[in-house]
Amino acid sequence: MKVKVVRRILEANEKIAEENRRLFKEKGIFTINLMSGPGAGKTSLLVRTIEALKDKVSIGVVEGDITGTDDAERINALDVPVVQINTEGACHLDANMIREALDEIPLNDIRLLFIENVGNLVCPAEFNVGEDMKAMVLSISEGDDKPLKYPLMFQESGALIINKTDLLPHTDVDMEKIRRNALSLNSGLKIFKISCRTGAGLPDWTNYLTTLLAT
Amino acid sequence: MKVKVVRRILEANEKIAEENRRLFKEKGIFTINLMSGPGAGKTSLLVRTIEALKDKVSIGVVEGDITGTDDAERINALDVPVVQINTEGACHLDANMIREALDEIPLNDIRLLFIENVGNLVCPAEFNVGEDMKAMVLSISEGDDKPLKYPLMFQESGALIINKTDLLPHTDVDMEKIRRNALSLNSGLKIFKISCRTGAGLPDWTNYLTTLLAT
Repeated sequence: MKVKVVRRILEANEKIAEENRRLFKEKGIFTINLMSGPGAGKTSLLVRTIEALKDKVSIGVVEGDITGTDDAERINALDVPVVQINTEGACHLDANMIREALDEIPLNDIRLLFIENVGNLVCPAEFNVGEDMKAMVLSISEGDDKPLKYPLMFQESGALIINKTDLLPHTDVDMEKIRRNALSLNSGLKIFKISCRTGAGLPDWTNYLTTLLAT
Repeated sequence: MKVKVVRRILEANEKIAEENRRLFKEKGIFTINLMSGPGAGKTSLLVRTIEALKDKVSIGVVEGDITGTDDAERINALDVPVVQINTEGACHLDANMIREALDEIPLNDIRLLFIENVGNLVCPAEFNVGEDMKAMVLSISEGDDKPLKYPLMFQESGALIINKTDLLPHTDVDMEKIRRNALSLNSGLKIFKISCRTGAGLPDWTNYLTTLLAT
């Protein structure tokens, strides 16, 4: 019974995701659904990415949070269009939330749209929102056992951004184990090792994005 | 429509949670539902807690993970009874999963039962499993904005264990902000500052547990 209900919700979601996808295509917008557990650094990554690219690419952001507008305010300070979704308890964004948020953002002026999902390493990976690509952030301090324990997000993502590498010397984390296990789940995964705090590794990520948009 | 479905699931869960609660009471077991985001250190905290208390208190553990048995193996190495639940995709434990797991654990020999939930700062807080108390772990490296962004778990928990305090000098995190905002959501919350890596602060937590069990 429960499974049937879940399937119906997923099917309804997929239909709306398809409509969002058509709209993005029509407007020439490349959309990245950015996911992670809580506090891995999604917003910090967006801030760094916008700082690096905003003179070359027109960027927009949809912020998803259970409550509050902290993240949208951080993005707004960079002078790019942003809209905040408050899910009011829901643990992930779905396609309908995105559809409604799109009314609040100037789609004609955007080439690259980031959708920052709710901080949750599980549920967001189950819901397409019409994105061209899913990307995920994993913080070093979450430990090297995460790929095998939370496989779906690693399987669904096109890029894995490993953040907080500056903390590596202060932990027992095995970076190579993260890489190996993530690739065992998804051999096509692009992996970036960065520190939003120090800026290390960020050019690899922003160059990758620039190349993606050029193709 | 969706809301109704969710409510029905929660009601059905609450009924089974109540049965679990009766069983725990009958057996004289104090049960703690231990929650956190991914990689905050729930299993490390259990390992440290068991090492400190197992000669004084008979402890049992129910491990919840989406997949795999890594955590149960870490607990098993300490020679306490443990059972692993694999939720196979589900983002939280529910009361029925616990009921089924209880058949696999020697309830007559246990005084303190830990239920380690799936690593998720959102969904587990919505589902009672029959516990006497919810406790949550927050890792310093998740940032000081978490209480206000993920309020429900802070509101539902009786204890907040702030872990990885050894990383504090290497971050920009404001510990006092975490404390202040967590207490603004739940003034009765007991807060412990620990490092499972160094052992700092752990006696405060284990003494607290000993006192809880004595009353």
